[in-house]
Amino acid sequence: MLVNCVAYQDGRKLADITREEIGAYVERPECFVWVALKEPEPAELDAMQRQFGLHPLAVEDARHGHQRPKLEEYGDSLFLVVHTIELQEGELQLGEVHLFVGRNYVLSARTRTQQGFAEVRARCEREPELLKRGAGFVAYAIVDAVVDRYFPVVEALEAELERAEERIFAGAPARASVEALYALKQKLMVVLHAVRPLEEAIGKLCGGRIPAVAAGTQEYFRDISDHLARIHADIESLRDMVTTAMSVNLSLISLQENENTKRLAAYAALVAVPTLIAGLYGMNFQEMPGLRWQFGFPLTVATMVSVDYWVYRRLRGAGWL
Amino acid sequence: MLVNCVAYQDGRKLADITREEIGAYVERPECFVWVALKEPEPAELDAMQRQFGLHPLAVEDARHGHQRPKLEEYGDSLFLVVHTIELQEGELQLGEVHLFVGRNYVLSARTRTQQGFAEVRARCEREPELLKRGAGFVAYAIVDAVVDRYFPVVEALEAELERAEERIFAGAPARASVEALYALKQKLMVVLHAVRPLEEAIGKLCGGRIPAVAAGTQEYFRDISDHLARIHADIESLRDMVTTAMSVNLSLISLQENENTKRLAAYAALVAVPTLIAGLYGMNFQEMPGLRWQFGFPLTVATMVSVDYWVYRRLRGAGWL
Amino acid sequence: MLVNCVAYQDGRKLADITREEIGAYVERPECFVWVALKEPEPAELDAMQRQFGLHPLAVEDARHGHQRPKLEEYGDSLFLVVHTIELQEGELQLGEVHLFVGRNYVLSARTRTQQGFAEVRARCEREPELLKRGAGFVAYAIVDAVVDRYFPVVEALEAELERAEERIFAGAPARASVEALYALKQKLMVVLHAVRPLEEAIGKLCGGRIPAVAAGTQEYFRDISDHLARIHADIESLRDMVTTAMSVNLSLISLQENENTKRLAAYAALVAVPTLIAGLYGMNFQEMPGLRWQFGFPLTVATMVSVDYWVYRRLRGAGWL
Amino acid sequence: MLVNCVAYQDGRKLADITREEIGAYVERPECFVWVALKEPEPAELDAMQRQFGLHPLAVEDARHGHQRPKLEEYGDSLFLVVHTIELQEGELQLGEVHLFVGRNYVLSARTRTQQGFAEVRARCEREPELLKRGAGFVAYAIVDAVVDRYFPVVEALEAELERAEERIFAGAPARASVEALYALKQKLMVVLHAVRPLEEAIGKLCGGRIPAVAAGTQEYFRDISDHLARIHADIESLRDMVTTAMSVNLSLISLQENENTKRLAAYAALVAVPTLIAGLYGMNFQEMPGLRWQFGFPLTVATMVSVDYWVYRRLRGAGWL
Amino acid sequence: MLVNCVAYQDGRKLADITREEIGAYVERPECFVWVALKEPEPAELDAMQRQFGLHPLAVEDARHGHQRPKLEEYGDSLFLVVHTIELQEGELQLGEVHLFVGRNYVLSARTRTQQGFAEVRARCEREPELLKRGAGFVAYAIVDAVVDRYFPVVEALEAELERAEERIFAGAPARASVEALYALKQKLMVVLHAVRPLEEAIGKLCGGRIPAVAAGTQEYFRDISDHLARIHADIESLRDMVTTAMSVNLSLISLQENENTKRLAAYAALVAVPTLIAGLYGMNFQEMPGLRWQFGFPLTVATMVSVDYWVYRRLRGAGWL
Repeated sequence: MLVNCVAYQDGRKLADITREEIGAYVERPECFVWVALKEPEPAELDAMQRQFGLHPLAVEDARHGHQRPKLEEYGDSLFLVVHTIELQEGELQLGEVHLFVGRNYVLSARTRTQQGFAEVRARCEREPELLKRGAGFVAYAIVDAVVDRYFPVVEALEAELERAEERIFAGAPARASVEALYALKQKLMVVLHAVRPLEEAIGKLCGGRIPAVAAGTQEYFRDISDHLARIHADIESLRDMVTTAMSVNLSLISLQENENTKRLAAYAALVAVPTLIAGLYGMNFQEMPGLRWQFGFPLTVATMVSVDYWVYRRLRGAGWL
Repeated sequence: MLVNCVAYQDGRKLADITREEIGAYVERPECFVWVALKEPEPAELDAMQRQFGLHPLAVEDARHGHQRPKLEEYGDSLFLVVHTIELQEGELQLGEVHLFVGRNYVLSARTRTQQGFAEVRARCEREPELLKRGAGFVAYAIVDAVVDRYFPVVEALEAELERAEERIFAGAPARASVEALYALKQKLMVVLHAVRPLEEAIGKLCGGRIPAVAAGTQEYFRDISDHLARIHADIESLRDMVTTAMSVNLSLISLQENENTKRLAAYAALVAVPTLIAGLYGMNFQEMPGLRWQFGFPLTVATMVSVDYWVYRRLRGAGWL
Repeated sequence: MLVNCVAYQDGRKLADITREEIGAYVERPECFVWVALKEPEPAELDAMQRQFGLHPLAVEDARHGHQRPKLEEYGDSLFLVVHTIELQEGELQLGEVHLFVGRNYVLSARTRTQQGFAEVRARCEREPELLKRGAGFVAYAIVDAVVDRYFPVVEALEAELERAEERIFAGAPARASVEALYALKQKLMVVLHAVRPLEEAIGKLCGGRIPAVAAGTQEYFRDISDHLARIHADIESLRDMVTTAMSVNLSLISLQENENTKRLAAYAALVAVPTLIAGLYGMNFQEMPGLRWQFGFPLTVATMVSVDYWVYRRLRGAGWL
Repeated sequence: MLVNCVAYQDGRKLADITREEIGAYVERPECFVWVALKEPEPAELDAMQRQFGLHPLAVEDARHGHQRPKLEEYGDSLFLVVHTIELQEGELQLGEVHLFVGRNYVLSARTRTQQGFAEVRARCEREPELLKRGAGFVAYAIVDAVVDRYFPVVEALEAELERAEERIFAGAPARASVEALYALKQKLMVVLHAVRPLEEAIGKLCGGRIPAVAAGTQEYFRDISDHLARIHADIESLRDMVTTAMSVNLSLISLQENENTKRLAAYAALVAVPTLIAGLYGMNFQEMPGLRWQFGFPLTVATMVSVDYWVYRRLRGAGWL
Repeated sequence: MLVNCVAYQDGRKLADITREEIGAYVERPECFVWVALKEPEPAELDAMQRQFGLHPLAVEDARHGHQRPKLEEYGDSLFLVVHTIELQEGELQLGEVHLFVGRNYVLSARTRTQQGFAEVRARCEREPELLKRGAGFVAYAIVDAVVDRYFPVVEALEAELERAEERIFAGAPARASVEALYALKQKLMVVLHAVRPLEEAIGKLCGGRIPAVAAGTQEYFRDISDHLARIHADIESLRDMVTTAMSVNLSLISLQENENTKRLAAYAALVAVPTLIAGLYGMNFQEMPGLRWQFGFPLTVATMVSVDYWVYRRLRGAGWL
């Protein structure tokens, strides 16, 4: 679906144009065309390929989707794949943005994501001196918008780890903690898959040989690269802590078992001792001290209680109860 | 076994030729020869070596088989080893494809695999402008076909992990989960052994100094390289998750043991308490309260039941039962 | 908040100047301006940006804060982000120092930290020949002061590990050890996040192409780089030992459980044996040896005690008690 | 001990020569001398040093032995250390081969190994065109022979892992499995120590700046490099699987414990229930239902058996028995 | 403390000189001065700085001590920090050697170590042709002496691991094994901290751009580099094996627990069965078979013994006893 298709000149909006006019505007070197697609149909992509003269491999990638984040140069144009990540009810939703960037055009096509770039466009239109910098700057603005939305996701995952940690140390049911940590690990892998290759791709736009369309914007891309490095480092330490939390959880489960065994043993002792005494007087010897004595029974029971109380105190003192 | 042996000119099929004619066609610079072998006999390989002038080390590798994926340059010709992976009834079947690529010939020899390249050839023949690009493009088309078939394998392994995860969290017999995860890990190692060295080999065809026969196709090989990077990343995260799932499983086993111990203790308590009471009245004191009373026995039993009911409620409340 | 704003010439203090005079002094090539801010307001940063002509991206980073340590070149000026780490009652407090370094000025802005740089300035003013070396040297002196304060933090963490180790091997409550090790691991991650990117950033000032403002000070920055490498190595081995200590702790918990089980079994045996004997004489056979014998009961009890004593000795010998 | 000392010309054997004649032949540029030593005495090495003009550091290394595999260039001659690995009754035997390679000589000295190079020499002598290629080729042939013998060792270790896996999953005594896996891990470390540095050393002979004596043989050394890469990858995945198998084993031990606990609990229940019933009728109340009834005892026993049977069925159903 | 201060010419000892004469001798290009300090006082270092013209940062490092091993170039002189490791009663003692190396002088300062370099000096003086090679060679000789003393340390740690392994598999108290492995791991970290940075530092003296004072000795430093690589590899595999041994130990602890549980269950069974039988005949039914029969008791006891014997045999057969 075509969202926007606008021609700019000198950083100012010239006109909303139709799909068919694109080719004509792109050929005018002083013009700049910025097209935004959403869930593009194959036919739309084909039309764009003709209008912009896009490389068939890039268009095929966009058509298939499910690409990993990457940057590819085709002659003097760039093809960028970026993943969007959104949190919906605690679940990660992955989308893709495909960017085709030429000397005087930017084509963005997004799929499976709620995030639009209307705001990016509005800001650029408000500040013509930014838009004048050309396609590289627009590409930066779009990628920057996507990457900025990674931060709340990472923070949500950090919060998830913190909740899991609290639960673990508070002695909440260990099974739930195990499941929560496992789910967290899975989410971290998903984010890592979006971030790591993008970091690599963006690195090519801010160091070494810079592609011509991104010339003059490397400081901006370095800024993104820096954000990605920070996110990457955050994810790595989250992963590390998740692993550690899992092993902590296992230790606490083992500890819990120790406690249980001790508790079990303690209660067993409290029952076993009077049972033994009862067993003694359950023997059928005709001569047992106090057997016929009136206070035999109460005294024996009293003995049982006293011994148990003593055992109980000792067990308590040793921390078994 | 010789599957196909065809000479092309200007991207169009010239003729099916015999093994002996190969040398003559290869010498005509405007011709292009594409030979496909299947489970080649040593004698066939020797014949090919003579006709194409292949390097003895490359032919020896093809003869021995069991090579790791690799790319080797011998003068201006290439020797490529690629592994095929097929899933047959849940088991991975490994095969090998050896590609000899020269300026105007491609020789493919496949062993231990059902996958043929008839479809690749058919597509190339339907589109002469592709075939015109020469040996590099044909090599790309064959490797691309092999790599494309890795995806369903990786997806099958992902599905296997998901099933294992479900079973683990559903509390299925832990032994089966352990065995399933171990088997999955083994399969991942096998796929990794096919993918990692191939990624490295293909990397030499799309960056740095490109061998002459692959010149002009680096964008295509970069596409394969990208697929391999994605598969590699997928396998790495699968491996990571398998390891995590194993440790989760161990935690759940320990937890299960905790539950068992608690359950065991709870039932022991339910039995021990009335046993103790019975022991008391089993003592042979002549004077015990209620001994001769008609309702002594029923009341004692009722006491036992009440106490047990109380114990049961408390244990239930504490989650031990 | 403006802490200091001083102009220097030939390494000697010229005058405390006002915020508005900065631009004039910076334009005099023989002058050198050194400004220190603390918890800067956005307005202050804007004023500084105008006076020094700072790059908007750098100022934006300073305004937002929460940057990872980094070095960025904007034309011939540098922007450095450094983390401060302070230990307050066992908790790590993270702060940030932003350094803007130009040919003849240094602007430092610190947030969330108690650490000031008055001492650094005092030392520099006492030794004009140091100050004469210019902005690069002042930047070195500030970063060096920050990094020097990492050492006591690392030492405190090492002491924390040692305390945890002692507790573990002394058999202190395992739960507390687990929590202590987990907390230590978290702190190590925090320090690592401050150190690792800074090491990378400083590396750019002591090897390869040195930015102009740092020319002639690479030996000093190499010294910092070396300190950071040492801290980094220390943290890595701390992390390694924490992981090892955790697994040691788990082993000891399992061992403890073994001991408990053995102890439990031993006590059970001590009770079970006399219970069994009592059970024998509790049977209602009319003919049982010694049933009517006067010493039947005492002898049986004596037997119980003897058998138990023997069992006790054996259990003790086997280390179960 | 001197095994062989032969001079060659134009790829053909000229004569067996004595140790003293070596120097004379080496000085004739059209000659090629190939000497093989076995467990060389210091005196022999000294003699060789004089005859070939070997570098003192290389000779000292050969004299001391216990070197790690390496390649060193001394002027235009090479010194190569390669480890031999042999399996003797399941134990790994490590030996060393030291190769001194100059423009027109090769000196091999092997220690602590049964493997000789007579076969290598025989093959070279049968094919003069190979021998004509000079010292680089002979060095290749020797190293290739050593590396080829790594393959059966790796296969033996793979078989060892498979046996261990089978035993683990078949439920064989876990202690034996642990010991087997530990021993396997140790052996893998030994092989890794032989392979990894050799891979690095051989890499210098097939890429980048090739030393003069190996010029023209890089394709051969690349073949060895490839073998080593395959062995290395095999060992790495073996190591990974050994670690995984160990953790699997631990999981199965824990599982086994769960089963034991459940079994123990189940049998305890089967005994406890009739014991409780017996306890009831063991009480000395004068009025208990059926006490004087003729069928009281058999009925009670029958009740016990029925209840136990019911308990048994339930436990069986729950998989506890 | 000044240990030695000698001037050499042409590789021969000229004279023992005083501290004040150093400067004069160093200025004579044909002379070479070699000074050895031990636990140097700040004042001594200051004097040396003046005499040799050492760089202030290097001297400051030497004064503070506790440097990590490193190589630093100051103009055309070098500053090298090397750690000494000594084993004293099973504990590692770390010392430091600081080397200042100029065109015609070497100054060594050692602290916290028993190891002197008298032997190195003696050997150099005995072989003037070695000493003639200059400062680079002397630096090599000293570092070589330090590194050579690492080998016995590593061997001692290997022996420690072997002892721990034997104890583990022999079933010695697991707690002691855990402690021993932990202590070993700590020692390995210490050695690693000495070796890894030194390896890096020495690498700069045998490859790439060699500092002028080390020119012509790279083959010697490559020899040290090689020793360090071997030690490094040894330590890495020791660390790996320690980790493995720890997990083996944990497995064996769990196994031991399994055995204990089984043993406990088995003994419980042996007691429970006769207790149950006794319970049966403890019931107060007036009619129980054999109650009044003379052989009732002995037969019942005999039955108990038989049943127990049968149970015992079965348990034994199943390996529970």
